[in-house]
Amino acid sequence: MARAFRKNVVHGLMVAGAATGLLAAGPALAYDWQSLPESVEAPQDNPTTEAKVELGKKLYFDPRLSETGTVSCNTCHNIREGGDDGRPSSMGVHGRVGPRNAPTVWNSAFMSTQFWDGRADSLEEQAKGPLLAHPEMGMPSHDKVMERVKEVPGYRQAFNKVFDGENPVTIDNAVKAIAAFERTLITPNSPYDHYVEGKKDALTEQQVRGMKTFNQVGCTSCHSGAAFNGPQPSMPSGQGFFRKFPTFMDSKYVEKYNLAEDPGRYKVTKKEGDKHMFKVPTLRNVELTAPYFHNGAVESLSEAVRVMGKVQLNRDLSDKQVADIVAFLKSLTGEFPEITMPRLPSKPGETLVDGAAPAGGGGH
Amino acid sequence: MARAFRKNVVHGLMVAGAATGLLAAGPALAYDWQSLPESVEAPQDNPTTEAKVELGKKLYFDPRLSETGTVSCNTCHNIREGGDDGRPSSMGVHGRVGPRNAPTVWNSAFMSTQFWDGRADSLEEQAKGPLLAHPEMGMPSHDKVMERVKEVPGYRQAFNKVFDGENPVTIDNAVKAIAAFERTLITPNSPYDHYVEGKKDALTEQQVRGMKTFNQVGCTSCHSGAAFNGPQPSMPSGQGFFRKFPTFMDSKYVEKYNLAEDPGRYKVTKKEGDKHMFKVPTLRNVELTAPYFHNGAVESLSEAVRVMGKVQLNRDLSDKQVADIVAFLKSLTGEFPEITMPRLPSKPGETLVDGAAPAGGGGH
Repeated sequence: MARAFRKNVVHGLMVAGAATGLLAAGPALAYDWQSLPESVEAPQDNPTTEAKVELGKKLYFDPRLSETGTVSCNTCHNIREGGDDGRPSSMGVHGRVGPRNAPTVWNSAFMSTQFWDGRADSLEEQAKGPLLAHPEMGMPSHDKVMERVKEVPGYRQAFNKVFDGENPVTIDNAVKAIAAFERTLITPNSPYDHYVEGKKDALTEQQVRGMKTFNQVGCTSCHSGAAFNGPQPSMPSGQGFFRKFPTFMDSKYVEKYNLAEDPGRYKVTKKEGDKHMFKVPTLRNVELTAPYFHNGAVESLSEAVRVMGKVQLNRDLSDKQVADIVAFLKSLTGEFPEITMPRLPSKPGETLVDGAAPAGGGGH
Repeated sequence: MARAFRKNVVHGLMVAGAATGLLAAGPALAYDWQSLPESVEAPQDNPTTEAKVELGKKLYFDPRLSETGTVSCNTCHNIREGGDDGRPSSMGVHGRVGPRNAPTVWNSAFMSTQFWDGRADSLEEQAKGPLLAHPEMGMPSHDKVMERVKEVPGYRQAFNKVFDGENPVTIDNAVKAIAAFERTLITPNSPYDHYVEGKKDALTEQQVRGMKTFNQVGCTSCHSGAAFNGPQPSMPSGQGFFRKFPTFMDSKYVEKYNLAEDPGRYKVTKKEGDKHMFKVPTLRNVELTAPYFHNGAVESLSEAVRVMGKVQLNRDLSDKQVADIVAFLKSLTGEFPEITMPRLPSKPGETLVDGAAPAGGGGH
């Protein structure tokens, strides 16, 4: 089942190019530029409902689901900004630092697979991971997570309202709720979207040039589709879109940014062919998610574009090409929905998270 | 200047008691029960404006103001729940643990002084502390904080819109904005408030009994006023309401909960008379802010009431008295305003927080 549907598609930049007069027609430009849908289909076993989204939002923002009571989903995937944490790699409980850069949660519903190495097929499955990951939320087990949730009367009520069954406060239902909330995190109506839908003044001349260059040099061979993360709508569900990164290992950038250290999907499958294979990330809102790459080693978008040109396409992009592509990529920043802060239910008059004893030093 | 004004005052529980038929009239009950105002006066040099509150909200929620990019004001003063962090003491950057329990930010505008030891007179001054506190946000200097803020175009625009002057992106203006936002964090219309405003069925019989006991045994000698944190409206601004805690040092609870280790305000003034003096905290929403006391050593509200009875009033409260007072205290949970999530402005395509290099272990 394709999990996304198209809202609008302009076949070929030729049309756009002709209208702006900036672009020459040609086979290389007959590219299927797609705008971002405003919604995404939910899996059949987890239909989206308002109450479920509300519950999921609470859980998403609840730091009490972490060992220390300090780290929520939103800590590393901060939806108030780019849906990531702006760090090379995340910092979880006890100040522990993880191995990879936090991918954005915005538009994650359009990903063909989850995690950099695709070790989760769905948002539901993904949400189980960070709860137990040692450098993230660090809980000892999903049972311990749900024990805490069960101690909160407001959560018990919400689970009972949303899910069937006698004991609905389960980890499977918790991640269903979180995933339902995440499916609402979509940023349509970027300047790019307006442009491909026919509003020719939505992009600057430089952005249109960058769009053309982005396609001509080959970026679209991987960063295709509405979310610029691969031909996801036409793929079977659960089949991730992976690419080898870096492809051209002899680039100086590979050493400079330590790009070949992480074996990527090989860690999951142990198959030789999966060495250095990574999920192709979305480029939506990419200007908000520095630093870049699976290890967050590159601090600026322009350097990221330059590096990608070399290590993936074996091209030395000119300064102008880089600047144009960056300008185009900035047109992929969409409209962020207004979200009301959730109220987290409490365990009235009782401590929920057993914390460490106070230590010395200044504060409060 | 008194910073709060009263919305409504019922003089004497006698009135309430007479209406419910639960309470006997008597001198001990002629107590000035006050409801919580819905707003608070701003200082003359920091008038509240909508744009300032919006800017303050962004800064309040921005983890990039901390060294690691992971800790915001909201991390320890989580307004999505009790305005604290539910821990004995907070966990800041690098998993560092501080010495004292995070006070709630809800209704902090009604506090006569800020921090447990009253080392800040105003919300503005308070907001400067955690930015630099080693176990909290851990920044090396306010200049370094503002350097980051200045790198964000959206912040520069917002400061220019809100504040006068050629270079308005200053720490003094930043904390003014944060304080302006905090002055909106008020929770009126609790069952208690409705009760003292004349709605006699707003409290249960047990809660009315608890209210009477709360006054009779002496809790109101410190926890008075609209916010139950002292006679603040009649006090000169900047004059904190402190009390010695523990007062009765020979109680077994003092050792059990390590209540005498922290010298309180003495740390600030070095005056012998300030030993173990602490700001009297608000009891508004107290059911949401376990664990309790300056060191967060007591896990439940009922135990906190029992301990307070002994170490402050030298009384052995009965189980019934404790249960009644707890029931009453739960009536102090107010209405929380609906708050829209702020969008944090970014430094487009550039890294703002230099983070540590990725480490090993699972995640993302």
